[in-house]
Amino acid sequence: MDNAMNDVPLRKVKVTQLRRIPTPDGEVRHCMRAQDEGFAGFGEVYVTEVYGGATKGWKRHREMTMNLVVLRGTVRFIVHDGTREGCQIHVLSAEDGALYARLTVPPGLWMAFQGVAPGSNLLLNIASHAHDPAEADRAELADFAALLPSTDAGR
Amino acid sequence: MDNAMNDVPLRKVKVTQLRRIPTPDGEVRHCMRAQDEGFAGFGEVYVTEVYGGATKGWKRHREMTMNLVVLRGTVRFIVHDGTREGCQIHVLSAEDGALYARLTVPPGLWMAFQGVAPGSNLLLNIASHAHDPAEADRAELADFAALLPSTDAGR
Repeated sequence: MDNAMNDVPLRKVKVTQLRRIPTPDGEVRHCMRAQDEGFAGFGEVYVTEVYGGATKGWKRHREMTMNLVVLRGTVRFIVHDGTREGCQIHVLSAEDGALYARLTVPPGLWMAFQGVAPGSNLLLNIASHAHDPAEADRAELADFAALLPSTDAGR
Repeated sequence: MDNAMNDVPLRKVKVTQLRRIPTPDGEVRHCMRAQDEGFAGFGEVYVTEVYGGATKGWKRHREMTMNLVVLRGTVRFIVHDGTREGCQIHVLSAEDGALYARLTVPPGLWMAFQGVAPGSNLLLNIASHAHDPAEADRAELADFAALLPSTDAGR
């Protein structure tokens, strides 16, 4: 493991509130503009689904900055730097009344995420780099089990 | 109205099938990579909701290339060049068993779209330019009413 990876500060993780603009025919939801803080180039946009009660992770990108927006349901993100000294938990939601926001995660941090709402939770990633398995490290959920909240949402 | 607008060929509209990759915890859905055909730069990513039975339009962008992916429900797109000689209708859907695809619409074409599934249909636009009201022409739905299929989906 590259020790330099551990120098990436968790404080670069950023939550940015976004606008939802209602109209009689359905709303417009902002996600990301090229001039927004946190934008780190465009490599790929994709959607990840995570069922309620399921956890995906751990993964640590070496190059990719992720800009994450929840489009359906609620997702809990656990982000840490591998030292066990710093860990952040963020919750993004598309549900009515919740904070609608974008989570920016720079490369070099471990992340897992959990589906909180029952059924299908949908997560958009505006990624600075296209998917490349060689660009990411993976770990078993058990490797940082103490950092994972229990999931109580039904599938 | 700028006559040059009418030179934009409807044949540049493109439907590209995309992958949905199932996993036990929820699928991954491709949307767009920077190297994909149809990518015209990154200005903004946003989501538009259209209720079942509702129609949004008409709008004609002067600069923006739209890359459209339906993330929930089913949406019908009506695209034409303003001459009434050419009109295309495309249907994109996120529903099981449907063709999952991206619709690329170059600037200079009129577009309206309709929610087909009941409730909330969600549409992702990976736009080459950020939203700018001065960059788009608008027309009333009635201005090209003959091109609009009737909507029978309930709200």
